[in-house]
Amino acid sequence: MSKAIAIIAGVGPGTGAEIAKRFAASYPVVLLARNPSNFEPTAEEINKSGGRAIGISTDVSSQDSLKAAFSKIEQEFSGAPIAAAIFNASSRPMRKPILEFSVEDFETAHGVVAKGAFMFAQHVLPGLVLHASDSSAKYPPTLIFTGATASIKANAQMSVFASAKFAMRALSMSIAREYAPQGVHVAHSIVDGVIDIELTKEWTQGMAPEAKIAADDIAESYWYLHTQSKRCFTNEIDIRPMMEKW
Amino acid sequence: MSKAIAIIAGVGPGTGAEIAKRFAASYPVVLLARNPSNFEPTAEEINKSGGRAIGISTDVSSQDSLKAAFSKIEQEFSGAPIAAAIFNASSRPMRKPILEFSVEDFETAHGVVAKGAFMFAQHVLPGLVLHASDSSAKYPPTLIFTGATASIKANAQMSVFASAKFAMRALSMSIAREYAPQGVHVAHSIVDGVIDIELTKEWTQGMAPEAKIAADDIAESYWYLHTQSKRCFTNEIDIRPMMEKW
Amino acid sequence: MSKAIAIIAGVGPGTGAEIAKRFAASYPVVLLARNPSNFEPTAEEINKSGGRAIGISTDVSSQDSLKAAFSKIEQEFSGAPIAAAIFNASSRPMRKPILEFSVEDFETAHGVVAKGAFMFAQHVLPGLVLHASDSSAKYPPTLIFTGATASIKANAQMSVFASAKFAMRALSMSIAREYAPQGVHVAHSIVDGVIDIELTKEWTQGMAPEAKIAADDIAESYWYLHTQSKRCFTNEIDIRPMMEKW
Amino acid sequence: MSKAIAIIAGVGPGTGAEIAKRFAASYPVVLLARNPSNFEPTAEEINKSGGRAIGISTDVSSQDSLKAAFSKIEQEFSGAPIAAAIFNASSRPMRKPILEFSVEDFETAHGVVAKGAFMFAQHVLPGLVLHASDSSAKYPPTLIFTGATASIKANAQMSVFASAKFAMRALSMSIAREYAPQGVHVAHSIVDGVIDIELTKEWTQGMAPEAKIAADDIAESYWYLHTQSKRCFTNEIDIRPMMEKW
Repeated sequence: MSKAIAIIAGVGPGTGAEIAKRFAASYPVVLLARNPSNFEPTAEEINKSGGRAIGISTDVSSQDSLKAAFSKIEQEFSGAPIAAAIFNASSRPMRKPILEFSVEDFETAHGVVAKGAFMFAQHVLPGLVLHASDSSAKYPPTLIFTGATASIKANAQMSVFASAKFAMRALSMSIAREYAPQGVHVAHSIVDGVIDIELTKEWTQGMAPEAKIAADDIAESYWYLHTQSKRCFTNEIDIRPMMEKW
Repeated sequence: MSKAIAIIAGVGPGTGAEIAKRFAASYPVVLLARNPSNFEPTAEEINKSGGRAIGISTDVSSQDSLKAAFSKIEQEFSGAPIAAAIFNASSRPMRKPILEFSVEDFETAHGVVAKGAFMFAQHVLPGLVLHASDSSAKYPPTLIFTGATASIKANAQMSVFASAKFAMRALSMSIAREYAPQGVHVAHSIVDGVIDIELTKEWTQGMAPEAKIAADDIAESYWYLHTQSKRCFTNEIDIRPMMEKW
Repeated sequence: MSKAIAIIAGVGPGTGAEIAKRFAASYPVVLLARNPSNFEPTAEEINKSGGRAIGISTDVSSQDSLKAAFSKIEQEFSGAPIAAAIFNASSRPMRKPILEFSVEDFETAHGVVAKGAFMFAQHVLPGLVLHASDSSAKYPPTLIFTGATASIKANAQMSVFASAKFAMRALSMSIAREYAPQGVHVAHSIVDGVIDIELTKEWTQGMAPEAKIAADDIAESYWYLHTQSKRCFTNEIDIRPMMEKW
Repeated sequence: MSKAIAIIAGVGPGTGAEIAKRFAASYPVVLLARNPSNFEPTAEEINKSGGRAIGISTDVSSQDSLKAAFSKIEQEFSGAPIAAAIFNASSRPMRKPILEFSVEDFETAHGVVAKGAFMFAQHVLPGLVLHASDSSAKYPPTLIFTGATASIKANAQMSVFASAKFAMRALSMSIAREYAPQGVHVAHSIVDGVIDIELTKEWTQGMAPEAKIAADDIAESYWYLHTQSKRCFTNEIDIRPMMEKW
């Protein structure tokens, strides 16, 4: 059987990049992001340090774009089982009165977070099942979805983002139940707090480091989930920094 | 101020019809359903028995169709506040392996249950707020979404329906929080069980009546929610027949 | 069969009194509270206005006291089925660091809210089942537990109260599942907000009426739950005033 | 500062023993169980293989017994901070109709699972806080409670056990919120399934290994939780074997 790969959708500077690097220590990784500038530095870093990474410009909300990406993955890693697939893509958590959202806002957010997650899952599940059948595989194949506070609590003015994140959580739960008997480990993470990345630096000035989530620690938690045995699957974790109020 | 109306989306024989009749005892009602044969008998029954009902053929998943419906409502009931708006539309709870669902299946279900609910809410909220400002109104304006077991539990092979229903529940919660301070009562109902309607008759043969939910009792529960005061809003109820396992 | 009665545990000025009066419109009522001064005015009011009420000084956390109360109920209403039993007793929602709570604090709170609810349920269930078998009964027998925000969210410094309230919610859910097939309707209410009673008047000065829950509206919601048919049981409702943040 | 220790309450053959051995690889461990025969083999195994373990016969439901145990711990490890404290004690998950439970059954279960957890937390929190202040500590101090399916779902005939487990989960959540800002990591695990131990062997004959949870994998998950940084605390995980239906 071909060497198993890991696929990470939603690789920007921050969580996606850290996840990619963490999994690249064990698997060739495929990085999906719409904008190549988002995955290029990470792919380069991985390739330079002895790992193997390819980036594919992909719009996960587009059926055609996803299809093209997976064709390319098949070209590069023909017949490769998938050891891990991480759906880390997201829309922005826009906060505004429901009457100020356009239907396009709704479609954009749901296109990525709900429909995108659904289509991504459909693309990776066969490769994950294939990995489950590989008796030499070290860890069970793992599919992880990155959620947020809004995955379990729909605050005022968060109608669009929260409804999309709730939908993604349901997908994760349903697929977890459908595929666990086949040995595929599906998990959902509730990232509850601000992640400490370039993007959040400006508006978190003055915040203690312990008030923000470390992206590499999220990556470590995903790696831990991946290493769980078939006799101990965790299907949901929450993640928050020590200073978080919740 | 014009006399307040009630709008029910998703009126077929069964729950929608019972809700329409219940609210028609107090308000002129507007019945929305794609197929006129679904609302016609109910509208006729209401009009014959001294109430007032109009039906409008509407596809709640279509922005244009909804817009046209609300234009017609405005023509018929110009400037009327909305005392109650019930989103009872749904897709079928299809159960199949995720790999057998098409992207169209996903879009159809989410188009009605998630996006449809979102757009419906946008259309009715101004009229609900208007009713909240009417000091002579007997009850606070009420927006109710009909959920299902799948709104809180995503079983295997229910990925499409459950993700749409989770999304709708988030919408309900977020809007409830945003609009409660304006006096609009938003509630979500988790209908957990088989409703006793024509459609379910065949495949529930032999089931005791107490194993199925009575549609008119659902309507009564919605009416009760509508009558709650501003000092006692219930934002979520579950509903099941006594014989239900859950 | 004897005329059915209603039993309300935890009758002080406020919610308990309103519940008692609401149910007294249809049933003789038994009011339980530790301190007679808590139930006497309500019992008197009911008896004067044509209803029938007896109060029994009872410590619901004491096995002996509860036993004595139910002996007295049996004396007064021999063989009477129970149409409704409301467990509205509670400890104070003390807020302090866990290290400042004594084991006695824990035992006191749990003695009322958890063990008290358990023992109360054991005492009323046979009478509720009896009522379920009465084909002339207008409504299914109903057992309702009054919960709080702390029933579903355990905030910092609320360890004692929240753990007791979580326990009570579990009791309600388990009994609901066990007794629904016998026609007994069990429900839990999450009262999320400040109730507008004498006790809260001082520390809610300046708060709008719509920021507090009306006790008589809670009573009305309990009555509604009681009137639900066997084909439409609601097992959990939440209740909050329109101005509540949650 | 003295070398930090780990304390595990509820050490029988199975999960407790595996947790003890896992943490013994890094810390001297204290094993608490009522019956010395439960912790002796594990203590011996740890001591023989180069670790350090002491067992103390303790009834966690008894204030005096717990006090005595912690006095002994203080004697043995004077002033030692606590790196990890695991509350793994439990009552049996008895399943019977609520009317068949005695008040003693209720008190026994709640005495261990609810009150025991509360008192244990009070005893270990100062030592955990002490460890949080040790800048040379490798990992944040961790307090973990072992829950079960019944911690989040109260099935019929599970009134006693579920209410106790719900209470424990509330304790965990409340303490997590209170102590996170001090750097203490509190987590609750929902062990959802049959653990593969001697005790369950007989009644799980014929079950596939993948239908049972591996005790050492639970231990590994607890160790992982312990290693999480202050910038990535997980407060709840669920654990189930791949063949579990849920």
